[in-house]
Amino acid sequence: MSERIYNFSAGPAVLPEQVLREAAIDIVNFHNKGIGLIEISHRSKEFMAVAEETETLIRELMGVPAGYKVLFLQGGASSQFFMVPMNLLKKDQVATYLNTGTWSKKAIKEAKLFGQIEVPYSSEEINFTRVPADHEYTVNPASEYLYLVSNNTIFGTQFQTMPNKDAMLVADMSSDILSRSVDVSRFGLIFAGAQKNMGPAGVTVVIIREDLLERVDEAVPTMLKYKTHAKEDSMFNTPPCFAVYCVGRVMHWLKELGGVEAMAKRNQKKAALLYDAIDSSNGFYRGHAEKQSRSLMNVTFTLPSKELEADFIRKAAAQGFDGLKGHRSVGGCRASIYNAFPHEGIEKLVDFMATFAKKHQ
Amino acid sequence: MSERIYNFSAGPAVLPEQVLREAAIDIVNFHNKGIGLIEISHRSKEFMAVAEETETLIRELMGVPAGYKVLFLQGGASSQFFMVPMNLLKKDQVATYLNTGTWSKKAIKEAKLFGQIEVPYSSEEINFTRVPADHEYTVNPASEYLYLVSNNTIFGTQFQTMPNKDAMLVADMSSDILSRSVDVSRFGLIFAGAQKNMGPAGVTVVIIREDLLERVDEAVPTMLKYKTHAKEDSMFNTPPCFAVYCVGRVMHWLKELGGVEAMAKRNQKKAALLYDAIDSSNGFYRGHAEKQSRSLMNVTFTLPSKELEADFIRKAAAQGFDGLKGHRSVGGCRASIYNAFPHEGIEKLVDFMATFAKKHQ
Repeated sequence: MSERIYNFSAGPAVLPEQVLREAAIDIVNFHNKGIGLIEISHRSKEFMAVAEETETLIRELMGVPAGYKVLFLQGGASSQFFMVPMNLLKKDQVATYLNTGTWSKKAIKEAKLFGQIEVPYSSEEINFTRVPADHEYTVNPASEYLYLVSNNTIFGTQFQTMPNKDAMLVADMSSDILSRSVDVSRFGLIFAGAQKNMGPAGVTVVIIREDLLERVDEAVPTMLKYKTHAKEDSMFNTPPCFAVYCVGRVMHWLKELGGVEAMAKRNQKKAALLYDAIDSSNGFYRGHAEKQSRSLMNVTFTLPSKELEADFIRKAAAQGFDGLKGHRSVGGCRASIYNAFPHEGIEKLVDFMATFAKKHQ
Repeated sequence: MSERIYNFSAGPAVLPEQVLREAAIDIVNFHNKGIGLIEISHRSKEFMAVAEETETLIRELMGVPAGYKVLFLQGGASSQFFMVPMNLLKKDQVATYLNTGTWSKKAIKEAKLFGQIEVPYSSEEINFTRVPADHEYTVNPASEYLYLVSNNTIFGTQFQTMPNKDAMLVADMSSDILSRSVDVSRFGLIFAGAQKNMGPAGVTVVIIREDLLERVDEAVPTMLKYKTHAKEDSMFNTPPCFAVYCVGRVMHWLKELGGVEAMAKRNQKKAALLYDAIDSSNGFYRGHAEKQSRSLMNVTFTLPSKELEADFIRKAAAQGFDGLKGHRSVGGCRASIYNAFPHEGIEKLVDFMATFAKKHQ
């Protein structure tokens, strides 16, 4: 095997190597039962145990209180953009959305199909370089919920603290779930595609307050009602078994490392190292996000010219730093450093950045 | 490794062992690039190549004509139950459904949310022991399409030939896709959950005639429009990468074995062996399906008593025949013998059945 490269991809993203190795064994022969993990019935006691354990670990690690369901769905976070309003809003009801990036924009577009959507804050005009503080917007008291994207993968911004408003929160946590502690009881619904901090692409975790399950209109298709999946413990139809299994293994890994609090400390150190390298480069590297809004998961920065950026990305790739090209909406570079990204990879990148800057400054 | 058991599960179901072994390697280190298959960006050239090759192989093996799109979606066949009418029907338009089992019933229920659904044939009163011949029903000429489930997993029935009616066909082929040749040009849309003949759970293949893409109402959520996925080659959002990869590996395996025609011959032989064992048991084993409707994929049968059935299933399991318990709607036993189920497993089961019958007859 060639050495593992440093994978800065925004998602699907780096996973713990031990999870990959466990999956490789179980795929061929699950628990030594003579049957592969991906060919086993989802109704078998073996797979039911996997799904239950995965849910239990998510509950434990996130501190999900009683009165909430944890669901494993398909269709990605993009399907939640319409499922949330389809299940929680009626045509004449109001919901408030904060527009802090590409994913909130897409969510707003879908929500408008289902209710009255108000957007009291948008950073679109400044290319989404920041997220708002509480005093920068008000929430219509008639709002059924306040929707936010807790971390904006593309622009590299993140809510340092969750909004403290008199409204039930709904959050797309796809790119920072389990990276820090969150008080779940403040949320009506949290969702996250797995492919950043939880596992491979193919499963979306939804955490929903149980009283919200009954809001949905009967005329909504069965598969699109949260309550369908809640009633059947996400086994109404065949779940994406392999992805659920992987999430469980990642949760085990996270627990072994000390859980979410320990992970949050690691993440702070990792991000600090990289932001320090940017801030101490005498302007050679420039962060895209405003400092108070900086993401610990996706670090976005530019170089003095497009040519230097292309050269930087090419030379970095040659040294085993993969996926540093920024999203086209921002340009420049992006280092996605989710939970499973190793600290030493950032140490090495920072060295590379210093050398590169010295040469071209 | 303990020996591989014989996995008669209805789905997720047995996969070719070589595919499991390939996946085990690629998951840890994809093409020796130092990055695992399930942590690689879906926009990487490596994964794009996987997705393209998978589509090309499906097109080649099924003989998909020009003018059709092949999509990789999520949400299982159950999501197609509503996506089909949501995309193809308007409220006042008619569609015709054949009710031949649990999955058609569910599809009819969802379709009624979107249009005028007519059901000119149902075998529900006889516990779905058969599918209709063409002369047993008529299709309203106003129908936008004629919907059928080509193989009924639970009841073990299958259309021996596709309906020959003056209507565009739409088929749920979840449990017999790629098991025999089909003239795709007679269909407006074919869909199949992967977890029987194509791969693991987590991806649904949809084959759709391109002119149908534009029928959908603009007010339908973006993710629920086929055209959204068609325009972006199933990369509008992150696809279920691992499942798509596995489908590609299964397609390779199928091609190596000679393709769909060769597979159809294998399937006929396998099923004949098992049905002969049933028919020659002097009534000890009784097939659930009428002979003209027998499925080559799911063989359903009962024994003289519930006690004998339980004993049969227990003793079979002890000898490495797994998943033979019938669905609760039929009772008895079910042997699901999809493409990847090995011939020798049926030879051994047939021996076991003969010995068991002799002892208890």
